[in-house]
Amino acid sequence: MKEWFPNVQKIAYEGPESDNPFAFKHYNADEVVMGRTMAEHLRFAVCYWHTFKNLGSDPFGGDTMIRSYNDARNEMKVAENTMQAAFEFFTKLGVHFWCFHDRDIAPEGDDLAETNKRLDKIVDLAESLQNDTGVKLLWGTTNAFTHRRFLAGASTNPSPDVFAYAACQVKKAMEITHRLGGQGYTFWGGREGYETLLNTDMARELDHLAGFLHLAVDYKEEIGFDGQFYIEPKPKEPTKHQYDFDAGSCHAFLQNYDLVDHFKLNIEANHATLAAHTFPHELEYAALNGLLGSVDANRGDMLLGWDTDQFPTDLYDTTLTMYIILRNGGFSPGGLNFDAHIRRQSIDPDDLFHAHIGGMDAFARGLKNAAKMIADGKFEGAVRKRYAGWETGIGARIETGQVGFADLEKYILETGEPELQSGRQELLENMLNEYI
Amino acid sequence: MKEWFPNVQKIAYEGPESDNPFAFKHYNADEVVMGRTMAEHLRFAVCYWHTFKNLGSDPFGGDTMIRSYNDARNEMKVAENTMQAAFEFFTKLGVHFWCFHDRDIAPEGDDLAETNKRLDKIVDLAESLQNDTGVKLLWGTTNAFTHRRFLAGASTNPSPDVFAYAACQVKKAMEITHRLGGQGYTFWGGREGYETLLNTDMARELDHLAGFLHLAVDYKEEIGFDGQFYIEPKPKEPTKHQYDFDAGSCHAFLQNYDLVDHFKLNIEANHATLAAHTFPHELEYAALNGLLGSVDANRGDMLLGWDTDQFPTDLYDTTLTMYIILRNGGFSPGGLNFDAHIRRQSIDPDDLFHAHIGGMDAFARGLKNAAKMIADGKFEGAVRKRYAGWETGIGARIETGQVGFADLEKYILETGEPELQSGRQELLENMLNEYI
Amino acid sequence: MKEWFPNVQKIAYEGPESDNPFAFKHYNADEVVMGRTMAEHLRFAVCYWHTFKNLGSDPFGGDTMIRSYNDARNEMKVAENTMQAAFEFFTKLGVHFWCFHDRDIAPEGDDLAETNKRLDKIVDLAESLQNDTGVKLLWGTTNAFTHRRFLAGASTNPSPDVFAYAACQVKKAMEITHRLGGQGYTFWGGREGYETLLNTDMARELDHLAGFLHLAVDYKEEIGFDGQFYIEPKPKEPTKHQYDFDAGSCHAFLQNYDLVDHFKLNIEANHATLAAHTFPHELEYAALNGLLGSVDANRGDMLLGWDTDQFPTDLYDTTLTMYIILRNGGFSPGGLNFDAHIRRQSIDPDDLFHAHIGGMDAFARGLKNAAKMIADGKFEGAVRKRYAGWETGIGARIETGQVGFADLEKYILETGEPELQSGRQELLENMLNEYI
Amino acid sequence: MKEWFPNVQKIAYEGPESDNPFAFKHYNADEVVMGRTMAEHLRFAVCYWHTFKNLGSDPFGGDTMIRSYNDARNEMKVAENTMQAAFEFFTKLGVHFWCFHDRDIAPEGDDLAETNKRLDKIVDLAESLQNDTGVKLLWGTTNAFTHRRFLAGASTNPSPDVFAYAACQVKKAMEITHRLGGQGYTFWGGREGYETLLNTDMARELDHLAGFLHLAVDYKEEIGFDGQFYIEPKPKEPTKHQYDFDAGSCHAFLQNYDLVDHFKLNIEANHATLAAHTFPHELEYAALNGLLGSVDANRGDMLLGWDTDQFPTDLYDTTLTMYIILRNGGFSPGGLNFDAHIRRQSIDPDDLFHAHIGGMDAFARGLKNAAKMIADGKFEGAVRKRYAGWETGIGARIETGQVGFADLEKYILETGEPELQSGRQELLENMLNEYI
Repeated sequence: MKEWFPNVQKIAYEGPESDNPFAFKHYNADEVVMGRTMAEHLRFAVCYWHTFKNLGSDPFGGDTMIRSYNDARNEMKVAENTMQAAFEFFTKLGVHFWCFHDRDIAPEGDDLAETNKRLDKIVDLAESLQNDTGVKLLWGTTNAFTHRRFLAGASTNPSPDVFAYAACQVKKAMEITHRLGGQGYTFWGGREGYETLLNTDMARELDHLAGFLHLAVDYKEEIGFDGQFYIEPKPKEPTKHQYDFDAGSCHAFLQNYDLVDHFKLNIEANHATLAAHTFPHELEYAALNGLLGSVDANRGDMLLGWDTDQFPTDLYDTTLTMYIILRNGGFSPGGLNFDAHIRRQSIDPDDLFHAHIGGMDAFARGLKNAAKMIADGKFEGAVRKRYAGWETGIGARIETGQVGFADLEKYILETGEPELQSGRQELLENMLNEYI
Repeated sequence: MKEWFPNVQKIAYEGPESDNPFAFKHYNADEVVMGRTMAEHLRFAVCYWHTFKNLGSDPFGGDTMIRSYNDARNEMKVAENTMQAAFEFFTKLGVHFWCFHDRDIAPEGDDLAETNKRLDKIVDLAESLQNDTGVKLLWGTTNAFTHRRFLAGASTNPSPDVFAYAACQVKKAMEITHRLGGQGYTFWGGREGYETLLNTDMARELDHLAGFLHLAVDYKEEIGFDGQFYIEPKPKEPTKHQYDFDAGSCHAFLQNYDLVDHFKLNIEANHATLAAHTFPHELEYAALNGLLGSVDANRGDMLLGWDTDQFPTDLYDTTLTMYIILRNGGFSPGGLNFDAHIRRQSIDPDDLFHAHIGGMDAFARGLKNAAKMIADGKFEGAVRKRYAGWETGIGARIETGQVGFADLEKYILETGEPELQSGRQELLENMLNEYI
Repeated sequence: MKEWFPNVQKIAYEGPESDNPFAFKHYNADEVVMGRTMAEHLRFAVCYWHTFKNLGSDPFGGDTMIRSYNDARNEMKVAENTMQAAFEFFTKLGVHFWCFHDRDIAPEGDDLAETNKRLDKIVDLAESLQNDTGVKLLWGTTNAFTHRRFLAGASTNPSPDVFAYAACQVKKAMEITHRLGGQGYTFWGGREGYETLLNTDMARELDHLAGFLHLAVDYKEEIGFDGQFYIEPKPKEPTKHQYDFDAGSCHAFLQNYDLVDHFKLNIEANHATLAAHTFPHELEYAALNGLLGSVDANRGDMLLGWDTDQFPTDLYDTTLTMYIILRNGGFSPGGLNFDAHIRRQSIDPDDLFHAHIGGMDAFARGLKNAAKMIADGKFEGAVRKRYAGWETGIGARIETGQVGFADLEKYILETGEPELQSGRQELLENMLNEYI
Repeated sequence: MKEWFPNVQKIAYEGPESDNPFAFKHYNADEVVMGRTMAEHLRFAVCYWHTFKNLGSDPFGGDTMIRSYNDARNEMKVAENTMQAAFEFFTKLGVHFWCFHDRDIAPEGDDLAETNKRLDKIVDLAESLQNDTGVKLLWGTTNAFTHRRFLAGASTNPSPDVFAYAACQVKKAMEITHRLGGQGYTFWGGREGYETLLNTDMARELDHLAGFLHLAVDYKEEIGFDGQFYIEPKPKEPTKHQYDFDAGSCHAFLQNYDLVDHFKLNIEANHATLAAHTFPHELEYAALNGLLGSVDANRGDMLLGWDTDQFPTDLYDTTLTMYIILRNGGFSPGGLNFDAHIRRQSIDPDDLFHAHIGGMDAFARGLKNAAKMIADGKFEGAVRKRYAGWETGIGARIETGQVGFADLEKYILETGEPELQSGRQELLENMLNEYI
């Protein structure tokens, strides 16, 4: 079989002293941390769209990356070669999961029937490669935003025909995800949003979005797919007003339309910051509402106003992320999907390896840091101490619903001005630095 | 009685040709638009905090504005003079409503009992001035964020004693609002939020916030107050992560804690934009979820990252706001509260009049523009046409729940690629300009 | 000759009462304002790249706009058809100027020689169309950012070969601009900037950028081109750190490298706001430093963090822009180039007309508003009064350099605390609203 | 002598294993790195305004921090106590420098003469404490922005009297800085900027600003002060349009007004990011233009739109900062001034120590990381290799001015399409992580 990345051999763990850019310095798949291997904790996935289909174009210029698997004349042959290359990449990198959109893996045909036939053919190949390699599907999804037909949304399109077309795509994508043993299925509302209220009936569009998701829930049951459904919040792109703005607005929507039991959230770092939240905030918000599903691991540029989807290398982020994940029992069936792409100037196939190695090493360090933070218990202790007043006395009576406004007034008239404590933010930040 | 604004007489409507800076050019209180007077539509309120208590300080410098009603040595005398001046201002300006925080109108005393006694004294005065002038209270509220005791929040404070103190304040503020015939009561979660997860138990804080609001709902019933409760969303200030980030996150919270029937939203223009939404978006989102309560009318500076609380003079904003308000039946018991302050350099009392006149004129133009837009029906027609596909055929069958994914697939396999229509954004924006 | 926009006839002025979406309501080319016709004042230009080559793609999806002039199989035939269509559009719209990049008008060939030959062929056609229609070239420019070869910059590329290639393109683009009687030539530093200091020698890159511009100045003289050179400031896109960030940084660069006499600035509205300045600020800064050259008229979305290049319809912006332009004597040889594109959903050729008509009407209103503001003299009077202290006494002595720190100290010890005046911002904003 | 921080003893270096929150874990003053001690490299300064005068107020609430040195009734006694406390703090912390504004150290009196007398008295005390402790003055400055008189600027005020008043303050502040052996003097243009062009003559204001600085240069010579003058760029706060927006705009201004030889820049991290630049970018830009003077070491919150002035603890920032500083020969007479304040909730005096210790440890790690990066030479090598083409051949001929556009065209016609290289950003970011 043709080798698509002949430059690179299987990436091995060589430890922090290694100078080899094609080795892990921190990610040691079988190393046990807090009772599980790193691989079990981190559940890394490679995404198909950025890693194999993104070739470096941006709004100011065309593709920059030349890949041998794109050389074939026939577009289905390109699709097959790319799938072969992808599994070679997964295997050499040593990740156990992948993620894809339907349109990443097979090009559209002249009509829907032909398109679905093409998909089936490529899924045959993917299935056999999964069997050969043991790589699994973390989640599948539909691309209902790239094609011209979705210019005004998919399920929120002013035209019911487009709604119907999107339904066809999701139906098929759920079927192939199911067939490939996918552990989840993600809904990112590509163009589900609007540009201007001057031409938009937002109430109707939100109703349609909810109706669509209910149809998906029905179909899930119909085909017996038991993977987890995820909604992925994102603001601002591509429509100015994306309906799934952030974790909070998704939470509102899911409750409002009786969908909250059927979905969890797939939280992406760069989407969090575009919505003016920290990544840890969105994770914690999801977790405390029972919605923490999976993670799109990347990093934004805080000086730029769009989704830069850079590889996650910030050790503060990886440490705090893993601290939240571990304290919430880890994630499964979710995982860490690298929804990230190499920079336009990083034109070599080698750069794909560098990027993923860097992200995996950064999360391995984050995992170890977080495990140490939990073992030391300093942060948990600080928080517990700060809220200690709620465990007894008036605090406990408030929490158990034994007092009303009048009782509280009486209490304060007796006890007077509350005592205050320092928030100790600087000390806690210093403590955190000692784990980095 | 002493006159506090001797420079200025009652502001009259003089029409667009007037050159008099102390006259309305567009706001004509008794002029009838769409069946109601301008005054009935717009329900303007002056806010006490910015107009009378804000003296121009900012993080880089102290007060700049010298006001005669602050001259008295005794702080209760200052409070009385200020209340007199305020009602003179309301009357000269010709607004029918005012809004206040407890701590705006009376200074805190040595302890809560003394503070409440002071409040009662000033409320006596306010009540008599209301009776004399016919000016009404749009809503009251509590300031549980300025005092040092609230440095880590009020109901979300790590200390239950501060929760209790906040309860006392809200209890009293509800009582005086009730006594003054207030048509609403607003909860702006001043410091209800957090700075860093390193010292925060967000789950517990959100539970406490909800518990607190339930106590307020109980107390409302207890005292027979039938004004509307409002929550005012705001992001980023003063805590980095405000729990009431935007309309969506408030909606999630209210649903999650069974509070959605007891609250509407008080939407502020500048809070909307700080949360990366347009003001019209937040209004429309609130309206379609039955949460459109009242409006804090101001304007932010889109190049600055904080709440600048400028007076609303942008005619696009006032037009689109009134378009949404009118199409949702107007607001009552809500209103347009000028939560805005004059710039630090606008040091003269005259500037207070200029600012409010400008805001009222801008909303009067907005109201007339919006009424004309509704009468012409062009925008409504464009929207109706765009969604016409949902009225019959497959669209109607989707909306009435008669089809599933399989039916939709069958439909598309038969009908093929959907037809697309232009969103016509530029044309609609041109049309809007003809109303400005 | 084939008609490419058969739906649309020549756009006529019909006045504000017209309901015809294909008519001007405010732009009346021959109407005289302050001694010149609107056409002479506004000098509108249509840009080739957005209006004819942008087909609605964005980072999340492909082209949406189908144009008959793109139907030909042969790419040179497409180029010719597009040029024909462009001049039909200019003529029907009634603009007197156009602008283009080399690569907009002719596709690259297999090598530079072939590419230049193609350019010559298309320029022949453009020249003849210019002669036929009387439409003139406001300015030409080079596209040295779209092609893969410029992934790391053009004149600031780490490779001298790319610098050389960019030189070839600018040389040729200057030649054809000269041949077409272009009144200016613009340098927008597409990818002149950097992504990360980890791989960048900024000092060297800036030296190369300056060296390149000096070569262009030399070549300008060599070929006798007497059009105006412009630099167009822009931050953040496409590189994270664009060297020509804003007017201030361009001013620093031009001074530092002895280029200040050879260049003026082409100020773009949306680039100004991306750099955290208002558009009027950048215009005024350029004007007071003798650098106000030309304007890229568009509008950004202040809630989105990238260059949205929307058509300029905000009447505040057009009014204040024209107020600055008029007070600085108008612009010539510069003009108002619509560096704007219709939204992705505006898929019809009609939308191109709507968009330009709206922008032209908005600037016509801005021009008339500004002329009235100047005639009334209220704003100028307010400014003059505010600075009146500098005309006599200590103010005049300071301005004429007659005093030092010790004299000023003596003055203050004698005169004491300065008197302060209100900045009157709210009143001035109200006054402005009366012109809108 | 009274001890103001009795809780805390002299902070000692205890190494990374220490758990003592009042010990350095990384900053070891006398440890030699690249031939100089850490203390010589880092030149830490404590700032007077944030550390001793900022008591936690924000736009939404009053002071939160209670300090024993503020207890005295008499405000001059408070000033003396604070100065005593400050030197105790410097000494216990082990920093060698401090910085102040005139108004930080002594309160204004009834008139300028009285104010200056008060200053002299406190400077007597400061001088004696400097002598006692060996702590030196890194730089002094004037506060010409807090007092009401400066509401519309100091040297850029519309009133010449305010210009004159500002001159008096700068004169006196320069004198006391000189007397205290200050190694520099900083100009931060507090309110030197404008709010709206409607009331502003920007050209005149810029001329006045330059005139003022020329007077300061004259006076510097007159009194024989040989410290370094710094300008500190900052955008957006407190005026919307600050004239010293960023390093680039300061560079433009200094060149334009012939001041470039008299000033360097004092670059602040949080000011850089508010201006949409990275901190390293501003440092590098300053360095390559010979303007790198001193550093205000702090950290902003990238999700908040104002100057949060947090203590610098991000190891990426401290590493890259020190990498630039070291490669530019270190700074002297500049230093690292902690222009940072503890959070509003950090109410204990202990928090002042925690904050500074954390910042010093973070910079110590940054220094060691940077020294290692320089010693390893990997980054420098990567950059050198990337630009190697300029050392010979066409690159060298371009750099030495031997070729024009025609030569370059000839070269490309012969050599054809340039070869491209990967920018290797991901690999370089991975390499950087190995130093963190």
